Amino acid sequence: MSTNLVSGTSPAGPVEARDATRSRAAAFDRWLLGRVVLGFQSARVRFRLWDGTEMSASDAAPVGTVVFKDRRALLAFARDPELQFGEGYAAGRIDLIGDFVGIHEEAIRARSGAPERGRRLRHSSGSSREDARHHYDVGNDFYELWLDREMVYTCAYFDPPDATLEEAQRAKMEYVCRKAGLRPGMAVLEAGCGWGALALFMARHHGVTVKAYNVSKEQVRWARRRAREEGLDGRVEFLEADYRAAQGTFDAFVSVGMLEHVGPENYPALGDVIARTLTPTGRGLLHFIGRDRPEPLNAWIEKRIFPGAYPPTVAEVLEGVLQPKGLSVLDVENLRLHYAKTVHAWRTRFEAAAAKLSSRFDESFLRAWHLYLVGAEAAFLAGSLQLFQIAFARSGVNDVPWARAALYAPSAPADGNG
Amino acid sequence: MSTNLVSGTSPAGPVEARDATRSRAAAFDRWLLGRVVLGFQSARVRFRLWDGTEMSASDAAPVGTVVFKDRRALLAFARDPELQFGEGYAAGRIDLIGDFVGIHEEAIRARSGAPERGRRLRHSSGSSREDARHHYDVGNDFYELWLDREMVYTCAYFDPPDATLEEAQRAKMEYVCRKAGLRPGMAVLEAGCGWGALALFMARHHGVTVKAYNVSKEQVRWARRRAREEGLDGRVEFLEADYRAAQGTFDAFVSVGMLEHVGPENYPALGDVIARTLTPTGRGLLHFIGRDRPEPLNAWIEKRIFPGAYPPTVAEVLEGVLQPKGLSVLDVENLRLHYAKTVHAWRTRFEAAAAKLSSRFDESFLRAWHLYLVGAEAAFLAGSLQLFQIAFARSGVNDVPWARAALYAPSAPADGNG
Repeated sequence: MSTNLVSGTSPAGPVEARDATRSRAAAFDRWLLGRVVLGFQSARVRFRLWDGTEMSASDAAPVGTVVFKDRRALLAFARDPELQFGEGYAAGRIDLIGDFVGIHEEAIRARSGAPERGRRLRHSSGSSREDARHHYDVGNDFYELWLDREMVYTCAYFDPPDATLEEAQRAKMEYVCRKAGLRPGMAVLEAGCGWGALALFMARHHGVTVKAYNVSKEQVRWARRRAREEGLDGRVEFLEADYRAAQGTFDAFVSVGMLEHVGPENYPALGDVIARTLTPTGRGLLHFIGRDRPEPLNAWIEKRIFPGAYPPTVAEVLEGVLQPKGLSVLDVENLRLHYAKTVHAWRTRFEAAAAKLSSRFDESFLRAWHLYLVGAEAAFLAGSLQLFQIAFARSGVNDVPWARAALYAPSAPADGNG
Repeated sequence: MSTNLVSGTSPAGPVEARDATRSRAAAFDRWLLGRVVLGFQSARVRFRLWDGTEMSASDAAPVGTVVFKDRRALLAFARDPELQFGEGYAAGRIDLIGDFVGIHEEAIRARSGAPERGRRLRHSSGSSREDARHHYDVGNDFYELWLDREMVYTCAYFDPPDATLEEAQRAKMEYVCRKAGLRPGMAVLEAGCGWGALALFMARHHGVTVKAYNVSKEQVRWARRRAREEGLDGRVEFLEADYRAAQGTFDAFVSVGMLEHVGPENYPALGDVIARTLTPTGRGLLHFIGRDRPEPLNAWIEKRIFPGAYPPTVAEVLEGVLQPKGLSVLDVENLRLHYAKTVHAWRTRFEAAAAKLSSRFDESFLRAWHLYLVGAEAAFLAGSLQLFQIAFARSGVNDVPWARAALYAPSAPADGNG
């Protein structure tokens, strides 16, 4: 971390006081710290109290230290670590020293067998809108400081592996177009279009027309401006509306980074929209953050960053969205490590922009967002989050690619201008 | 069809009597035929009675005709078409005229919305053995007449599309090895090895050692002989045993064409075997006939051809086998049309071998098998059957391929000798 603003406001406790036996902490505090450490057994992480008392969760050399700067932070964390770690960190009552991502990855792997907490999710057209606004209407100028130039806020595809973020986002968009089988003249429905980069890319490079839905006013405004500037506003229509309002038929259905905000109770409605709008031989692509097994989102991320979000398993998507509508899976790919690399790039830019960020946003907000990026990178590295792309068509459609090799051809297979 | 033996023993009724109004059939027979035809509405298929009475299920030109040669066949078919079509055909009381596969494809597509019949499935180690013996112990010399030279009785991979069956089976084996991430020196567990072609291919071309399980005595005998002849018996061990008996650890788990015989109630046991035997960074590949949505196997196929078989959905496999064991999906591919082409090649060879076949097997047996091949080709064309390959690793393992492009490189990415 390059600045105090993002890394914490103070050096985190007296580093010389390494031995728990020499600690001045009360017996209760030490007992509680012991219980906390027990919950992270085998994680190469050290925990430190405000007075320098330290305990490690593993005999191996720690990748970093979690510092509780006061008793209140320790008590809250002990009661509900999933929620209170983020709360304490954002408030500056918990700090991290060392490898931020490593600490998270160690903690996630150590706790991967921990019992799930039951939390209910609620989604309606109304709450989706509020949820998306919570996250995306923070302001375009915030995201501009750490996303790529085209404001693509979804997993990139690093092909080649040393591609820049800008190159990797373009590679992802091309990859999505190929998986969706785009050909010039097709009509595409995009559900959840962010700042519109993919919709514009599809029109520009694959000669299609696009109707793109998004409930975030800020994003739609930005996307429309770009469409006008590029002269694509005749071929790409951005609608500030729920994707469920979509009418008409489309040769392709594309949704990149929306499904994780839809919530399982709305999967049948998503399936309805696809079944209702896809042409008989149309192709679809769902790109979403998912899980290896059903689990609620981290409580703090759900509360502070992505209200209402739920990363589903592949099976939940197949059974909730595709199967009931007679849709057939053609291809599923897990791009988990590409997302770790994507978030790494965002986090690096976020840290590099610390001075600009701190002049415009308050410290607690920035600490929360930095922690979210750190935690997301770690979650993709540790495998508690996945990134799935599912390509599909209607059951029994034989106008599908014979093999996948064409996805990896140097230029676009269909129109040659990718 | 080239011979009477396979296509039917008699010309099927007086072709001049095309008009139902001129029919001599009793009113009841005509009424029943009408009900039968109603069940296939929109299928471009004509139905004909023993006296020439005909009705069509669609106004469009029919691709072929189903001929009921006596009242008993019609009555049975009307009662339970799924089961009694095959029974009647095998017994020679139902015949087909025209495009055999086309008739099936039309019928499957027309009935794809028909209600499912509830049938229970039963699987234990004992019954699996009986089931496999039912199918595979028919005799190697039977399968030699219509499979490829290496006796690969699973979906081939036609890359390029005009590959011969022999080439396509080799391409499939190489593809499976790449998806399983084989490297020289690795130990591989193969569950359900058929006549051993894949196990031998893996050892020969990828320098691995293989333990391959199969409950069919005939197949294991053949496989062991081949291993000895090729000098691979030191590296490939064929075990006449249930795969659940496997012990030790393996760098890769491979199962091609077995899962559809395992039955959902045994998925947890399969998951156990994988979780118990796979190394921490090991890779797995499941290749199986599946469905877009849960549905029992056709009653006749289940009774006469594959007792105990059940083609699962991807979701059923993920939730039954992989998820509970902390395994992560890396890649799912649907090769449905490759299986249609594979079965087409088998059927063509089966028909070409009609003379040899009829000298060794009775007519009803051969008619049943021919119908099974016809029906399978149609089922893959119509999308009532799928062919899925699922590649997986343990959750959170980062030693996985960065991208899939290497699967399509001209030579094997790992050892260069594929």
